[in-house]
Amino acid sequence: MNKGKLYLIPSPLGETAFEHLFPPFNSTLIHSLDYFIVEEFKTGRRFIKKMGMPKPIDQLHFFLLNEHTRPKEVEALLEPLLSGFNMGLLSEAGTPCVADPGSLVVNKAQQMGIEVIPLIGPNSILLALMGSGLNGQKFAFNGYLNRDRKLREKELKFYESLVFKTDQTQIFIEAPYRNNHFFESMLEVCSPELKICLGVDLTTDQQLLKTRTVSQWRKEKIDLHKRPTVFLMGK
Amino acid sequence: MNKGKLYLIPSPLGETAFEHLFPPFNSTLIHSLDYFIVEEFKTGRRFIKKMGMPKPIDQLHFFLLNEHTRPKEVEALLEPLLSGFNMGLLSEAGTPCVADPGSLVVNKAQQMGIEVIPLIGPNSILLALMGSGLNGQKFAFNGYLNRDRKLREKELKFYESLVFKTDQTQIFIEAPYRNNHFFESMLEVCSPELKICLGVDLTTDQQLLKTRTVSQWRKEKIDLHKRPTVFLMGK
Repeated sequence: MNKGKLYLIPSPLGETAFEHLFPPFNSTLIHSLDYFIVEEFKTGRRFIKKMGMPKPIDQLHFFLLNEHTRPKEVEALLEPLLSGFNMGLLSEAGTPCVADPGSLVVNKAQQMGIEVIPLIGPNSILLALMGSGLNGQKFAFNGYLNRDRKLREKELKFYESLVFKTDQTQIFIEAPYRNNHFFESMLEVCSPELKICLGVDLTTDQQLLKTRTVSQWRKEKIDLHKRPTVFLMGK
Repeated sequence: MNKGKLYLIPSPLGETAFEHLFPPFNSTLIHSLDYFIVEEFKTGRRFIKKMGMPKPIDQLHFFLLNEHTRPKEVEALLEPLLSGFNMGLLSEAGTPCVADPGSLVVNKAQQMGIEVIPLIGPNSILLALMGSGLNGQKFAFNGYLNRDRKLREKELKFYESLVFKTDQTQIFIEAPYRNNHFFESMLEVCSPELKICLGVDLTTDQQLLKTRTVSQWRKEKIDLHKRPTVFLMGK
């Protein structure tokens, strides 16, 4: 029997009309599927409904994947693929497998020789990098830094030194309710001439995408509390 | 006078139906513009025509940006924005400003307080990362390595050591006619247990997106000559 294909399906980053976010093919593809892996049942179902799924939602099969999923459970998630069914893997927000647990499933799928097909959609890291004006020939995404202020500031100094030494743009995210603390640390420890880009509420009406030097940012007042933000450092 | 906005407009990576690649808004937006910055006149005009531009193409204004463009010329490119016109910045393939000269313009635009708005579309680096199953919580794009074989292999060993030390996925591209040499170097110097993902001809009918260990790849025969490829290393 032929194995099914695993489709990686991007979701919105916020409240935005779908015609801004997804190629029409994405909904065509979603309509063809019966099996989905999601991070949360509720948001997964809601998204699939909004994408115009013509089949009754309760006839579809949903499987849960999050950071608590164990390796053995990951294997079980792939059963429908081995039985020949195509599956969709959804992220809570943005593209699956980038800064989310999706890569656990894809990793296993790759090992099992299952065809993996990523679809096009919004990714906040990529959009922020594009719009930052910072070096796009060399960049690193470092995810979350340490929550302890002292340790985080030490890490920020290290990443700043990479920017000045190698011109590699450094990209970070933080839990949205800690954004202000994170940005304060950046302005506290980084050199005045370092450039920082904030990509805030990307793809929504509230979008802010702004690159300034540390010394310029120090003169501005901005509240990032609970606003999804990508932080970038560059020369 | 209000300044214009700079839209970052993705292009196809190969021959693919547009409904697979772009949200419908992208064409709506393109139709509204009269000023475009492109890497090549011919491909830029062809793409805009294919996106259904209702205005005669020869009434539009095209400006050239490539790796030979000097800083002073970059400023001149932004004149229409200062006069209140919106502009579109196009890449030759994929999303502007990632592994292409677009960030020169965006950098200047950010300095001048011009609003920059990235649109959604195909990016080979992101698609390859999503489909690789490698770590998407920490990754670095390193662009092109040295053309000299000895130096390139030294660099590859260094990046491999980063993978094993920090679990940061390492991403590279190469000029397509040199892909086979690059891949040979990887198989030559990297450890048998290192995972390599190839993302080849992404978004097209010929798409290959496959992750295997170095020792598995050594047993396969694959010709990457002139096929656009993203190379990834991971644990």
